[in-house]
Amino acid sequence: MSSENLAIETVGQHACCGGSLRVLKHPSEVLGVPATFSIFLPKEALAGQKVPVIHVLAGLTANHETFLIKSNAIRFAAEHGIALVAPDTSPRDTGTPGENDAYDLGSGAGFYVDATAEPWSRHYRMESYIHRELPALTEKLFPLDGDRRGIMGHSMGGMGTLVQALRYPEFWKSVSAFAPICHPSVIPWGQKAFDAYFGGDPSKWRDCDPTLLLRNGHKHPATILVDQGLQDQYLSDLRADALVEAAKESGQSLEMRHHDVYDHSYWFIQSFIADHLTHHAKGLKA
Amino acid sequence: MSSENLAIETVGQHACCGGSLRVLKHPSEVLGVPATFSIFLPKEALAGQKVPVIHVLAGLTANHETFLIKSNAIRFAAEHGIALVAPDTSPRDTGTPGENDAYDLGSGAGFYVDATAEPWSRHYRMESYIHRELPALTEKLFPLDGDRRGIMGHSMGGMGTLVQALRYPEFWKSVSAFAPICHPSVIPWGQKAFDAYFGGDPSKWRDCDPTLLLRNGHKHPATILVDQGLQDQYLSDLRADALVEAAKESGQSLEMRHHDVYDHSYWFIQSFIADHLTHHAKGLKA
Repeated sequence: MSSENLAIETVGQHACCGGSLRVLKHPSEVLGVPATFSIFLPKEALAGQKVPVIHVLAGLTANHETFLIKSNAIRFAAEHGIALVAPDTSPRDTGTPGENDAYDLGSGAGFYVDATAEPWSRHYRMESYIHRELPALTEKLFPLDGDRRGIMGHSMGGMGTLVQALRYPEFWKSVSAFAPICHPSVIPWGQKAFDAYFGGDPSKWRDCDPTLLLRNGHKHPATILVDQGLQDQYLSDLRADALVEAAKESGQSLEMRHHDVYDHSYWFIQSFIADHLTHHAKGLKA
Repeated sequence: MSSENLAIETVGQHACCGGSLRVLKHPSEVLGVPATFSIFLPKEALAGQKVPVIHVLAGLTANHETFLIKSNAIRFAAEHGIALVAPDTSPRDTGTPGENDAYDLGSGAGFYVDATAEPWSRHYRMESYIHRELPALTEKLFPLDGDRRGIMGHSMGGMGTLVQALRYPEFWKSVSAFAPICHPSVIPWGQKAFDAYFGGDPSKWRDCDPTLLLRNGHKHPATILVDQGLQDQYLSDLRADALVEAAKESGQSLEMRHHDVYDHSYWFIQSFIADHLTHHAKGLKA
């Protein structure tokens, strides 16, 4: 084992649904601090077989555990023989001034972007972490098939999912989201975060806004599945309408499902998670 | 609506799995403080049909939300058309001296008993709350079938479940537990709690210990289902062996399932929850 691997610490390990849920802490080169993530390995992976993998990105205030313990995803991942990787929602304890001052900026609110403005640019580089470091690390450590890699997310993590999928369509083969922030540039959450993380650089704003990415010609070859509750308390900030419009104009295949009585919570995610795993299983030939 | 009903406040409501998850706060007569509980109503109940109900008792440090959001129980309750009622694990903010000083006594650690010793006896009366007040209240408010009422719990809540089932076998028609504390009188958790809540009264100790209840002739007519992980970090404190022995001697039907690699966590509960809902559905003719 290399010295790099020795620095990786397993801080939790639990049998679950015939497989194994593990929590790992590693020195992140991209983030410049130790980072924690969870991984679910189905029994096939424990037996050494290469399995497809879905990275799951959670929303504001969540951490590496939230999506996996609350979504019901694991039981369906186990059924399909798919691994799940759940990163944290930001770097932690970086010493960046103000990082713990608000729920929607800094800790728990990395927005899956690479900050370019001070004081955030040193550590807040979740886009590169999600795209470069975490897949490479997990695929080195575990029998995950990098050719069958999907991405899924909720809210802020739904935004991160769509941005990753549209920017790196060869890298992520299947895509789905629950109640994603679809057009961050025009709503308070996104404007606050982008202003802090990018300052005035409009090219960065464009690159991290799913609706603008679609308008600017980015596409994903697969159908993107999105579930949106119509009783979502953040409905007007999420702007599913803008995503639908942009997808229509650009020819992006998008299955946008609206659900009458559902809100923004994990109770909503629990209700439709099985369909998402089926969607990814199909896309990843699991 | 009576003035009593007017005092009941719905503090949360979320669509989930075709039904509705609600969080209610009510002035508890038994506990002498406001109490919060969660209830899942399957779609049949929303349509006014009387449905079976399972009360779910969580473990130390948990609250009224923990079991429902982390166990995956709701999707299977929805499939069977069963309601779930999840109380808190203790009264809260009672003003009892020391109630917030330890994770295993006071807040979050009511042990589902009626305390008889000072200073706990005024408010810490979870046994009566679980047996008398909460079923009556929920069956008055919602279309729940009191003739098809089951009980299920985890750890401390598994103990509460077994005690309720053995003391009130006509009241709870179906019974199951995950990693219950089976013989609290002989282990540190139970001794600390019983000593505080009951002082030296040995009759109360006997009445709140599942193993002693079985030894003293209490029985439940149905088969009790228990799952126990063999990697449970509290295995030696849970004493499943004592329960099995007492059940054998008393002729209590007990299905004790041991699971090699599983521990005490909700990852374990997630893995076997479907079987528990099937067990209750059969027992409650759902």
